[in-house]
Amino acid sequence: MADPWQECMDYAVTLARKAGEIICGALKEEKSIMTKSSPVDLVTETDQKVESFIISLIKEKYPSHSFIGEESVAAGEGSILTDNPTWIIDPIDGTTNFVHRFPFVAVSIGFVVNKKIEFGIVYSCVEDKMYTARKGKGAFCNGQKLQVSGQQDITKSLVVTELGSNRDPETIKIILSNMERLLSIPIHGIRAVGTAAVNMCLVATGGADAYYEMGIHCWDMAGAGIIITEAGGVLLDVSGGPFDLMSRRIIAASSRAIAERIAKALQIIPLKRDDATN
Amino acid sequence: MADPWQECMDYAVTLARKAGEIICGALKEEKSIMTKSSPVDLVTETDQKVESFIISLIKEKYPSHSFIGEESVAAGEGSILTDNPTWIIDPIDGTTNFVHRFPFVAVSIGFVVNKKIEFGIVYSCVEDKMYTARKGKGAFCNGQKLQVSGQQDITKSLVVTELGSNRDPETIKIILSNMERLLSIPIHGIRAVGTAAVNMCLVATGGADAYYEMGIHCWDMAGAGIIITEAGGVLLDVSGGPFDLMSRRIIAASSRAIAERIAKALQIIPLKRDDATN
Repeated sequence: MADPWQECMDYAVTLARKAGEIICGALKEEKSIMTKSSPVDLVTETDQKVESFIISLIKEKYPSHSFIGEESVAAGEGSILTDNPTWIIDPIDGTTNFVHRFPFVAVSIGFVVNKKIEFGIVYSCVEDKMYTARKGKGAFCNGQKLQVSGQQDITKSLVVTELGSNRDPETIKIILSNMERLLSIPIHGIRAVGTAAVNMCLVATGGADAYYEMGIHCWDMAGAGIIITEAGGVLLDVSGGPFDLMSRRIIAASSRAIAERIAKALQIIPLKRDDATN
Repeated sequence: MADPWQECMDYAVTLARKAGEIICGALKEEKSIMTKSSPVDLVTETDQKVESFIISLIKEKYPSHSFIGEESVAAGEGSILTDNPTWIIDPIDGTTNFVHRFPFVAVSIGFVVNKKIEFGIVYSCVEDKMYTARKGKGAFCNGQKLQVSGQQDITKSLVVTELGSNRDPETIKIILSNMERLLSIPIHGIRAVGTAAVNMCLVATGGADAYYEMGIHCWDMAGAGIIITEAGGVLLDVSGGPFDLMSRRIIAASSRAIAERIAKALQIIPLKRDDATN
């Protein structure tokens, strides 16, 4: 039987590449920036332009599908995940990087059916790296097969995470205290390139052994989540339980041993879920 | 009058590129790793191989010049800076990245005469980015002229720094507390790619607005230091005083205003200087 979603995936790759071209073009001229919820949570005209570009072209081809997009949600649309085929889109993952021209910004597209991710695309456009994964068929970067490091020993691990955009003093304290706990194990180091999707793809390549974060959204994780698992990695909730796409938290690791050790170390930040109804 | 050091600089670019090729080759096969001073301060066969490759070729051509190299110092050679033309070399800046194949590793070469940096080369070899600067003649990446962002407002700044390789609990606390102070100003964010030289080059491109770190060495700063100033940026000591290449600490920023604001925020970590004689 033919793969029912392969056509959608091929289309997503084409759209991600075109969206990346729009972003790279805008990087040469972008000026106007609007602030979102805080002075450090930025959104640009390009975010909105790229999201409507992607969604309108998908709607044309697949009118019955559902959408969850960062900018649409910011504009008041819901983000309840149903069983319907759903495209989960972050037009620019790494908006702060984009504003500063820090060279890691990605288009992220995840495709979910019956609440399971079927494929994911992360296009890191300045680097021109196209990461893709189809369920059961492996993960790739520019056509090259990806494999996580397989590292089992946390004391030999390199971890990626972010300081985030929340400037609430209590949240900052927990974020830094979690880094302190990990560094004290010890681990080899912590890196942060400024986009959840690219951080996760770096784990998928084997360049880092784990990524964790709290406070991100389903559109930051849906594309890269399946790239991790198809590269042989593990997704876990920060509590050590099963990963939940709408929970706003994640551990993505090269092995279950490392994911569980990180879960054990982390203090949890209270967060409102992406699908909370109030 | 002809530039007396241009020939040395051209030679340095050639050597850095060849060294980068050795590193990229080794990234495909590197296995054997020796630990240096702690479980997280790594050194590889490739570090030593690349450093002797570079130094032996320079010695052949410029037998009267002096050298300070990371691996030679680790092996017991001194690092006293004299007025003699001195090549300051880090064969692999980002050794932990190298070990993990995290894709930012750089060859760094600084050339110092009468204790002033005359030129600097940073070759980020996985990215194939050759950063160069000659005193008074500007900074370039792959031939393209670099210019810092010019940002003056710390609350609109993106900062790069590192968690470092020191696992002393007191040092970790100061490093994290410094991040907390900056995030609370607030700033837009903090990034860390795992090499001092590449972090500084990202400031030179305008992609980040400042970099600071304590605990690094002259070979981490000599190449990129002049890339910062030739791109219009500012070097300052973390105390707010003048930058000192042998002090093991640095603020590199897009403007004096931002450098001074960071200096004001930082708690200083006590360190033994690179040129300490005991």
